[in-house]
Amino acid sequence: ILKKAIGHHEVIIETPNHDEHLSQARITQLIQVIHAYRDRLKALSSLDYVRYVSIFRNYGADAGASLFHPHTQIIATPIIPSIVNEELIKSEKYWEENKKCIFCKIINEEEKSERFIWKNDDFIVFSPWASVHPFEFWIFPKRHQPSILFMSEREIRSFAITIRVSFGGLRNLLDDPSYNLGFHMITSDCYHWHVEVYPRLMQGLEGFVKSTGIFVNTMPPEEAAICLKEAFEKEEDEL
Amino acid sequence: ILKKAIGHHEVIIETPNHDEHLSQARITQLIQVIHAYRDRLKALSSLDYVRYVSIFRNYGADAGASLFHPHTQIIATPIIPSIVNEELIKSEKYWEENKKCIFCKIINEEEKSERFIWKNDDFIVFSPWASVHPFEFWIFPKRHQPSILFMSEREIRSFAITIRVSFGGLRNLLDDPSYNLGFHMITSDCYHWHVEVYPRLMQGLEGFVKSTGIFVNTMPPEEAAICLKEAFEKEEDEL
Repeated sequence: ILKKAIGHHEVIIETPNHDEHLSQARITQLIQVIHAYRDRLKALSSLDYVRYVSIFRNYGADAGASLFHPHTQIIATPIIPSIVNEELIKSEKYWEENKKCIFCKIINEEEKSERFIWKNDDFIVFSPWASVHPFEFWIFPKRHQPSILFMSEREIRSFAITIRVSFGGLRNLLDDPSYNLGFHMITSDCYHWHVEVYPRLMQGLEGFVKSTGIFVNTMPPEEAAICLKEAFEKEEDEL
Repeated sequence: ILKKAIGHHEVIIETPNHDEHLSQARITQLIQVIHAYRDRLKALSSLDYVRYVSIFRNYGADAGASLFHPHTQIIATPIIPSIVNEELIKSEKYWEENKKCIFCKIINEEEKSERFIWKNDDFIVFSPWASVHPFEFWIFPKRHQPSILFMSEREIRSFAITIRVSFGGLRNLLDDPSYNLGFHMITSDCYHWHVEVYPRLMQGLEGFVKSTGIFVNTMPPEEAAICLKEAFEKEEDEL
């Protein structure tokens, strides 16, 4: 069906400052970065052959970053990726059966769980129940919305603060680790956008992971959350 | 159902020589390595709580190898990993419907395809149809057998030569690249063991791969096979 590969690959230079990474950026600059994400998402998703727009970031050599200067990549594809599509199918099914969003339900439960890390009025951060990576965390807007295009101005600022607290906390806790992050968002009323952050702290089992499909994580999310909570709170205090 | 994680993790030191990697090892030494794999597979798979034994190898920093000295890792798990299980289910279904092995069929077809790389009397090497990694290749015994425990003495020697030619060729073609390899084998009459080799040449899209499940490979397997074929033949000539 798909005759040729078609799409877009863009790089957003986040700042003119060589070391102004998410962990140390000015809030005003992060607000600009979020606006850039929104502008490109809006432009790319309006193209008729684009079915999905992935916004992602590699930081540090262990995460595959080939450049140090703060940058984010965007890839627009003519297909919905398998991981997001699986989430979409499940969330549509849940909505049909329960007339509500499964991610809203998860957020409500995780806010009271041992995996809760941090929140403000508009965002919440927690370690996912079955974390694939040590110290993995997910950032969700509290209000139900399918993508970052639906954020209010207040939420944009609130998201910038959440980013700063999260990545500043991660940096201080684990001595500036490499990480990958990916936005999950798709235009469906049933979907609830979020950011997944995967610190890259484990090495040496790649051949096992690749040939079996079994992930190895030696850090229970409940223990990771205790450490991240403290680090995020400290970062917030110093902001 | 699974009350606790139980299993084994072992490291095989392949040789006393610090730089005698698969690409440059003596054939006599590789025969010893294969015997070590067989001994440990036999011992571990005889344990009643072990459902799968993964033999894998990381080579080079980009493949997550933390040690240089030639070594192979073995992990025995109380579950059948998802990737192998999927292959098992499909091969059992194919056997039921066609009374033959799907891998034998693939081998026969790939031997005549553009993806064919190299063979001897007992083994065949080819680039898989939908390679996930640039220059990925798979090694299969020609004779139908579920695991390395079923090899004859002749096949063991033949496998040692195949390893030497394959990894020597890979090393020379791509300036000693990092790679992961994993054995796929399981005790079922329908299964056909093989080795999958994943060179690690691409970086910079990890955040995309992890958050979408889409793999990126810029090298068509048919083009990779042309280069690998030449490199393997050269390596064989110099052996």
